[in-house]
Order: sequence, then C-alpha cells, then structure tokens
Amino acid sequence: MSGNTFGLLYCVTSFGESHGPAYGGVVDGCPPGLELSEGDIQKELDRRKPGQSRHVTQRQESDRIEVLSGIFEGKTTGTAIGFVIRNEDQRSKDYSALADTFRPGHADYTYWQKYGLRDYRGGGRASARETMIRVAAGAIAKKWLRERYGVQVRGYLAQVGRTSIPFESWDAVDANPFFAPNAAMVAQLEKQMDELRESGDSCGARVNVVASGVPVGWGEPVYGRLDADIAAAMMGINAVKGVAIGAGLGATVASLWEWQWA
Amino acid sequence: MSGNTFGLLYCVTSFGESHGPAYGGVVDGCPPGLELSEGDIQKELDRRKPGQSRHVTQRQESDRIEVLSGIFEGKTTGTAIGFVIRNEDQRSKDYSALADTFRPGHADYTYWQKYGLRDYRGGGRASARETMIRVAAGAIAKKWLRERYGVQVRGYLAQVGRTSIPFESWDAVDANPFFAPNAAMVAQLEKQMDELRESGDSCGARVNVVASGVPVGWGEPVYGRLDADIAAAMMGINAVKGVAIGAGLGATVASLWEWQWA
Amino acid sequence: MSGNTFGLLYCVTSFGESHGPAYGGVVDGCPPGLELSEGDIQKELDRRKPGQSRHVTQRQESDRIEVLSGIFEGKTTGTAIGFVIRNEDQRSKDYSALADTFRPGHADYTYWQKYGLRDYRGGGRASARETMIRVAAGAIAKKWLRERYGVQVRGYLAQVGRTSIPFESWDAVDANPFFAPNAAMVAQLEKQMDELRESGDSCGARVNVVASGVPVGWGEPVYGRLDADIAAAMMGINAVKGVAIGAGLGATVASLWEWQWA
Amino acid sequence: MSGNTFGLLYCVTSFGESHGPAYGGVVDGCPPGLELSEGDIQKELDRRKPGQSRHVTQRQESDRIEVLSGIFEGKTTGTAIGFVIRNEDQRSKDYSALADTFRPGHADYTYWQKYGLRDYRGGGRASARETMIRVAAGAIAKKWLRERYGVQVRGYLAQVGRTSIPFESWDAVDANPFFAPNAAMVAQLEKQMDELRESGDSCGARVNVVASGVPVGWGEPVYGRLDADIAAAMMGINAVKGVAIGAGLGATVASLWEWQWA
Repeated sequence: MSGNTFGLLYCVTSFGESHGPAYGGVVDGCPPGLELSEGDIQKELDRRKPGQSRHVTQRQESDRIEVLSGIFEGKTTGTAIGFVIRNEDQRSKDYSALADTFRPGHADYTYWQKYGLRDYRGGGRASARETMIRVAAGAIAKKWLRERYGVQVRGYLAQVGRTSIPFESWDAVDANPFFAPNAAMVAQLEKQMDELRESGDSCGARVNVVASGVPVGWGEPVYGRLDADIAAAMMGINAVKGVAIGAGLGATVASLWEWQWA
Repeated sequence: MSGNTFGLLYCVTSFGESHGPAYGGVVDGCPPGLELSEGDIQKELDRRKPGQSRHVTQRQESDRIEVLSGIFEGKTTGTAIGFVIRNEDQRSKDYSALADTFRPGHADYTYWQKYGLRDYRGGGRASARETMIRVAAGAIAKKWLRERYGVQVRGYLAQVGRTSIPFESWDAVDANPFFAPNAAMVAQLEKQMDELRESGDSCGARVNVVASGVPVGWGEPVYGRLDADIAAAMMGINAVKGVAIGAGLGATVASLWEWQWA
Repeated sequence: MSGNTFGLLYCVTSFGESHGPAYGGVVDGCPPGLELSEGDIQKELDRRKPGQSRHVTQRQESDRIEVLSGIFEGKTTGTAIGFVIRNEDQRSKDYSALADTFRPGHADYTYWQKYGLRDYRGGGRASARETMIRVAAGAIAKKWLRERYGVQVRGYLAQVGRTSIPFESWDAVDANPFFAPNAAMVAQLEKQMDELRESGDSCGARVNVVASGVPVGWGEPVYGRLDADIAAAMMGINAVKGVAIGAGLGATVASLWEWQWA
Repeated sequence: MSGNTFGLLYCVTSFGESHGPAYGGVVDGCPPGLELSEGDIQKELDRRKPGQSRHVTQRQESDRIEVLSGIFEGKTTGTAIGFVIRNEDQRSKDYSALADTFRPGHADYTYWQKYGLRDYRGGGRASARETMIRVAAGAIAKKWLRERYGVQVRGYLAQVGRTSIPFESWDAVDANPFFAPNAAMVAQLEKQMDELRESGDSCGARVNVVASGVPVGWGEPVYGRLDADIAAAMMGINAVKGVAIGAGLGATVASLWEWQWA
C-alpha cells in the first residue's frame, strides 16, 4: 500500500533494485488450479530481456525466474506466488562516477529529496528493470485470462518519434527487435534508432495494447472503473507520460502537435 | 474498495444516483485544524452547477451542500467529513421512455450486464452528477494544499474538437461559460457549440490542469507514483478517455492525428 | 482507509459525531438484487436505540434512517448504499462543563493529543452512537447472508460483572432490556444494574455471538483469515477489550481470574 | 489484499509453504535511514527457530534470512525490503501418508474446500513456519520503534494449561526454552510438557506482550483503532483463538472458567 503493491483481488507486490542482489515479487489472489510453470513466465521475461539487439541496453542478464511458492504439482494452489530474479551483471563500480551527479530526467533527484539518501547504482529502485516484476505478474494473469475467459492481451510499437508504424499483422511483431507490427518498416526504424543514438538523444514512442474478448462489465464503478485501473498501471511504468483508451485523444479530432502547456 | 472509495491517506467515498434522493460523500483523512465552511465547498460546486448557460445541461439544481460531520467551531477536527447534496430536479418521469432503450456511449448497458438490473433514471450512478462529490472533496483538498504547502491547482479548457484555445490569462477563465483562458475565443466557441448542438452531435475536448508549487517527492514509488494516482483519478471521470502529464504525448514529437487503433 | 472505512468487498464507511447534525454511512459492495427497505434496517436500529429502559442512556433519539442511494424499485442495484441518521437530542450545552475536563477512560484525551483540538460535545466522534452505522451496515449484510447462504448471526448477553447468564433460549433474548437469554435471570440483572448505578460505578460484560450455517472456507489466508477480520471488527467497537473465537480462552483450561498483567 | 498482505503504511506481504523451496516477505513502508543488517533480523528468527529444545518441533532448519533489497550501505533506503528464507529440511516424503488424511484441528480441510486442491506437505501454507515472516517484519519494526520513539515491545509465556506463571523478571525470559519469566517455574513446566507429550495431547497457553513507551494517539479512529489492528494481527497467527488488551477480559471481574458457548 506504500507504493509497491498494486491491485485488489489479483494483487502484485514488488521489490528489488538495479544493482542489489535480486528483484522479486508476490502475486496474491491468483485462482487455484491454473497449470503454471516457471517456463510460462520465463517466456515473457525473455521477450523483455536486455542485450538482445544493439537497440536496447547492453547489460547482460539472463533474467531467470525462480518461483518459490504457490505452485504444487504443476498447478497454482490459491496461495501467494512468490518469485525472485537474481541480478547477475551488477557492475556497480561502473556507476560510481554517478554518486555525485544526477542524471537529467531520472528519478535519482526525487528519491534523494524524498528519502534523504540515494542509491546511485544504476537508478536503484527507479531502474526500468523493475518492469520484470510486472511482466512476470502479467504473464500469470494473461494465462488465466486466456484459459478461463478467452481474453487475449497483445501489444506492439505504434510510433517512434515522428514515425508512425502502420499495423500489418500480429505475426510481424515478434519477428523484429522493435516489436513493430510491420516488417517493411524495420529497416527505417533501425536507421532512425542508430541516428538517434549517435546524436546522443532519445525520443518518445507510442505502444498500442489490444485486449480482445473482454466481457462487458469488468471493473468497478465509479472510481475503480477499468479505464482508471489501466491508466494507473500504465502511468506507473517508468517513462510513460500519457495513456489513452478507445478512440482516446483522437476524440478531440484535432491536431495534437501542440500537446504541451499552452 | 469496491469502486466508490478513492485514495489512501486522503480518502474519498461517494454515493448517489442522478434521480435518487441525494448524492453524498465522506472525506476521511483531512488533517485537523483547517478552517473550513460549507461556503468554501459551495463556491467550487457553484462553478460546476448545471443550468448556468445554454451550453450545458438545463437541469435546474441548486447543488447545495450540507456538511454533517468533521467540522467543529469552524475547523476540521481530524474526523471524517460527511456531506450530502440533495437532488431537487428529479423529474424521473422524463426518463421513462428510456426504460426500454440504451443510449449509445452511456454506461447503461454495462450496468445492466454487470448487475442484472438497471436504474434507467437519467444514467443512475453513471450520471456525471457524481462529479459533484469529486468537486467537493477536491475543494477541501485544494484549500489544505494551498494553505499548508502553497500548492495551487487550476484548470482551463484547452481544446474543443479541432479548435485549440491559446492560453491568455487565468483571469479570463472564470469570465466565460467555457472556462476558456482566452476572451477573444469565446464568440467562436459559442458558435461552434451552437452548431454542434443543432447538428445533434457532440465532440471531444481537452482540459489542461496546472498544479504549481508542488514539492519534490510527493507520491509513492513505484506503482503509486503521483503520475499513476493522477491518471487513475482523471480516467475515473465520466467520458475521460485519455490523460497525459508534463510533455505528455507531445514527447513523441509526432503527428497524433492518427491516435486510433492502427 | 484512514480509519473510517472497514472491509474489502463489503466495505463500510462511517461519519458523524455525537452532537453534530447527523451520522451517516456508505455500504459499498452490497450485491445487486437484494430486496431491501429502510424498514429492514430500522428494525435493527430500534433494538439498539437509547432510552428504551432505565438501564441505558436516557438520551431521546428516534434514530430514524434515511437511505439516499443504492436502492431502486425495492432492490439493491449494486451501487453504493448511502444513508444518514439525524441527531435530534443534541443538547450540546449540557456538555459545556466538560470543555475543561477529561472523563476518565474516555477517548477525549486521546483525540486531543492526536489532533490538537477536541470536540467536547458528548464524546464527539468517540461516542458509542457511532455503532449505529455498524448496526445499519450489519443489518444489510445479515439479510444478504441469510437469504443467499442461510447464514444466521445472533447474539446475547452472557455475563455481567461476576454474574454468568446461562443460555436458555433465543426467544428470551428479545423479551428483556438486557438481551439476556434467560428470563429467570432478569430480576437479578435489574437489581445488579440498579445497585451498580447507585454506586456510581460501571462493570464489564461479555456478549456471545453465534453465526450458524457458515460455509467452510470463508476468509482469506493468512493475515486475513476470518478470525482476524472478526477480531478487528469487534475490537473496533467502543469499550471492547477482548475477543475470543470457538473454545477461545477456555482452551487454556485454567483460571482466568488473573487475566491481568502478571 | 487477498490475505497475504497486512498493514497500511508499514505493510507486510508474505509467501511460502512448509515444504516448498522457500518462504519470503516484503516490508513496504519502512522509513529510510534505519541502520539495518541481516543480523538484526536473524537474531529474532533464531529465537523462533525449531529444534532448539525437546519441547518444540524437531524439524532441523537454520532459518537463515537473505535480504534482497531495500538496504544500501547498511541503511534502509525507503524502498521495499524483500527477503527469503530457504526451507532446508523439506522431507516431504514424511508427509505422504497424510495425502489421504486430514489432521483434526488443522487447516488442511479448509484449504481443500476453499481451493479445491490440497498441499498435503506438512500443512502447506497453513504451517506455523509462516510466522517467520511476521518475526522478520516485526524485527525491523521493533528496531525502528525503539530507535525512533523509544518504544519497547516484549513478550513472555504467562500460562500453560491450568498453570499460571507469575512474572519475576524480563531477564528470566530468555534463560529457558519456554520464554517463561520465572526461573523457579521451569522444572514444573518441563515436567508438565513431557507428560502432555507422552499423553499424546496438547493444551492451550497464554502469552503476554507488553509495549512500553507508546505515545498517546497512535492508531486511527474508529474502525482502525490500535486495539483493532493488534487484535487482527494476533488472531491471524496460527492457533490463536483469543486476544485481550489492557485489563481485558478481567474487566468482567468474573470466573471465566466457563468461557465456552453457554
């Protein structure tokens, strides 16, 4: 409830820092009787894993999950599912130069102001490595939703900087390092990303997520409606600055070039 | 926790339907010692009140708040602040034709599917009249934040359909029925809204909210960061389909005309 | 979450002070389709009402509940059930002498230390009148549990001071002002209470509550097991200092006369 | 929120089964800047450890804690403290005979009814080994409370079956395997326990916990008062059937021999 737990009935708690011994999480509220193995979760973690192309962080990690509870004889038992993912490539010496410097746009400064001290090792708790826990907890949820309700949740890269990526097929998504749903765009994206990195800059991006087969009536009115829960979950991800649902901001039918303070 | 309560330390619970006897709310966690009167809250409710121009719903309501607890001798006591706002213009007969019809885009159908029955009187719990409770709870929070921390929270209409509204001044905001921050735009907005209503259509809009003086470090890492809480609160408001913070979606530096499914 | 809300799925929020305008509450999470009238709740409130015998507080209150939401056409709708109970006998002048005095064993001093100010009117928020909200919320829950699951929840006075009251019949319980399950004990209880009041003293008592027909498996392991939820709810009631379940403290098979610090 | 998380600001989440790979927990909300080592926690776990006398379970476990996050350079950082405790003595074959048998008074049957399957290995999630997590989380809390507020929390065995144990000194408590505060009683307790084990029976006991130096005003009125939180925490412990605070049940000044249903 102090920020590291999310959800009410399917409830995820997370811990871990970028250069501590391990990340870990607890999924509380997973229904019993779901067939579940570490492999089911590992498959999704592998998609997230760093070091798989030159376009992502080069940190070397196997991101190997170990499930410590909640599964017995290949099925969930209804009890809390605890798991850990060890950090292997801790190289915390690499970050020692940062002990006296704040990186612009990073949460280092905020943590320092809030807590009066600072874990300068690669972002500490604010590192995007924490999204491993969301991926693991999401993998379990996705399996349950698919098997129990036929709900399918999928995502893809829809835009990078000014470049929109037209949707071609779901098959294309896993066939390139950008998760772009359009094979014809990949060469352009590689070029754009290489130029960006050479320029020492970064840019924003847009990700589309599609959930299909969702029954009518999920979520709770009024403050807990599904849109609100999703918005909170998305905006809690590092670097996410906006979220829209359905027609979303296109509902204004207007140029959003000027989406800044007036 | 079943959807009608929001917040952890400053915690708001809401009830009421469009054509029931009353709306009401409970603010739990307001610090003691805040000078507070019904007038402080009423002032904000009056800004929200229907029937004040031809551009909003013509329902006649005084939206008069009655505070029932939590204030003693002009100050908050630290105990829960309960309040009610009576519905005066209930005219539920007006809605009888809707008993057999679902309005497109309204939550009627969802409630019916979720709960197996339907309150067809003007949207029932899904009516935007519920935002009164958020306004009242927000009025108390804003007063505390301003007096205790110097934080100021203000908003204005930034876009209607394709029409962007350049920010001129905060003074302009309260001088027109649109809360537009630009007097020169008002005539155009009136024309646009009149045409829209005559065409029997509606359109999207964008509202900008600016909080100034916010200290570094508010919010809880990682799932409860301030962005996430704000996103949930905003997306819980009727008809809100997107929310962005800071540079927001402008961070993609790209045309967002195509902000729809690919 | 700041103390005035209890429960997760069936969630009760409470407000009100002894001499403010009204008490009120919100029941969130009551299932839809339950036949429910104000009379169903009033019936239980009437059992709790003061001034019904010389053995309880003589304050005159009708404790009339007004339900403001969540019921439509005689049935619960699934939305939050808000209600208020007006204070009629406020006589706050009667308490003015207490403005400079703390009553031993009352929470006045605690509130004053915690919040820095004090509502000296009859105990303010700490008044046992707040149990009205629990009675009202409990009345709704009891009706649902009985109709949906056949669960019956009943209670009686089992001991007053040193006097144990042997259980005779449930019928006896409502036939005397003590809710004693034994008609033959009533005269003795009246005498004991009269003597106690004349002596200017008070004493402890024990209440037994029996829930029958409860299905196996309710409650959540491990911190939220049913025993724990019940214990919290009971110990949150004014003046309750101990709670036991099942064989309870009798499990020690020992004299508990010395149930004090060793 | 589904039962394995306890607390609001200092929030503990727990996982693990008696014969799974490990137990673990997450403490969220520990203030930053507390000097904390694994040794601080291990010290308390060692007091709880099985196999230290013939009077407790003979399972051999080192109950070694490994802290995985939330501490940097010897101090808490304000982020979630995750930890694991490996099970070493899993011997799950020993329990295979139980796969077709329910032990009286154990939660096996409840789990089976609730979740539709059963982890028969030594009680699974219902094993009292789970109290390790409470001990670990409590060790951190106790250290903070002592250093920051001077609050001291201590406990001792006050009664076993019919045998009351008069309090002599805190020094005595750690000098015998029963945590009895009275050296002169130890021989009698050993004899009583040996006889009890030989008879194949068990008995109840009473533990007294004393918190000294607690400031006025902790806890939240009204449902979240400190008594209620403590009662929930205590009753959530395996086998605890009753809890009392202050004068407690002694307030009835009466024989409680008959503390059963009337």
